Amino acid sequence: MSEKISIKPRAMMYPAPAIIVSAYDENKKADACTLAFATMCSHKPPCVMIAINTTAKRKTLKDILLNKEFTLGFPNTQQVTETDYIGIASGYDKDKLEKVSWTTTESSNINAPIINELKVSLECRVINIVEVGSHTQITGEVVNIVADKEVLDDDGRISLKKLNPIVYDDVLYDYFEVGEKIDDAFKPGLKYMK
Amino acid sequence: MSEKISIKPRAMMYPAPAIIVSAYDENKKADACTLAFATMCSHKPPCVMIAINTTAKRKTLKDILLNKEFTLGFPNTQQVTETDYIGIASGYDKDKLEKVSWTTTESSNINAPIINELKVSLECRVINIVEVGSHTQITGEVVNIVADKEVLDDDGRISLKKLNPIVYDDVLYDYFEVGEKIDDAFKPGLKYMK
Repeated sequence: MSEKISIKPRAMMYPAPAIIVSAYDENKKADACTLAFATMCSHKPPCVMIAINTTAKRKTLKDILLNKEFTLGFPNTQQVTETDYIGIASGYDKDKLEKVSWTTTESSNINAPIINELKVSLECRVINIVEVGSHTQITGEVVNIVADKEVLDDDGRISLKKLNPIVYDDVLYDYFEVGEKIDDAFKPGLKYMK
Repeated sequence: MSEKISIKPRAMMYPAPAIIVSAYDENKKADACTLAFATMCSHKPPCVMIAINTTAKRKTLKDILLNKEFTLGFPNTQQVTETDYIGIASGYDKDKLEKVSWTTTESSNINAPIINELKVSLECRVINIVEVGSHTQITGEVVNIVADKEVLDDDGRISLKKLNPIVYDDVLYDYFEVGEKIDDAFKPGLKYMK
């Protein structure tokens, strides 16, 4: 057994995503911000949870709390520059989407903008909000998903390799791509079921 | 702009992790389960949030609710068989950790077991619990982190590439490895700040 050492407490997750949430402000202007604090959190109904810094200057948080609806999109590795910028800049100072030349279409299900350049977007209706620590945890029920055909497999399901999402490292502050498939899920472990 | 089509709502996250949470039962026996519903969720205090199926037969959920303390460890790609099994089997039927020949050491900070074979484990104290949809969302404050020296870089920080965590695809049910670094974070986006 190798030696274990204690290191300073901090939040970490391996892997963490780099996703983009988007919402309308009070003037129906689309805003967006990049987040790494996001996870699936319920099967029935299907939900995702995002956590946004409560005290930081986050226009998108204000907009989501206003509308109780948002979209969550997955940028790909070719969009890392835009994704990084949307995480750095504030929607109070700049029209971030215009700055990166991204466009939006209003969802036909919720009052939130879908970023056209993102290949997959979840349309979410807020069903729970709770402040914990420095962040506001927002659970959104996924009421619809829009996807570009090019990221779907022959059965109409999203292909991770075609989507090519960004992996974010919040410790060394790097972006990675997803690599090779190493195994099927719910299969290798069956050898221990005998 | 490529054509967008609507697909059936479901929870999804790209990338999602495959992590292992562990807790003691009422007899101080260590139990563990593999989860994909997990994220960082607060900087101050540092916290992670895990969501566990409320209705499914999950011994680890019961144990975490009992002790209000748990560990969250990151398996690597060489441990995918054990990780898969710990996600499939139930702690009510089997001693899953014994089955995969994994051992534990009690945390010196909390009443929870650290799985020795995992290279990095977060020691967490529960600070919030909320049931949303089919799952119980549990926020744990990270009070300590134990890491094997071999996954640290020269500055004592965790190296994602040395840790070699598992990426889980909850749509096509596959495991992947993290691939190449594509960029630094908080740097490429600066070009739009001008």
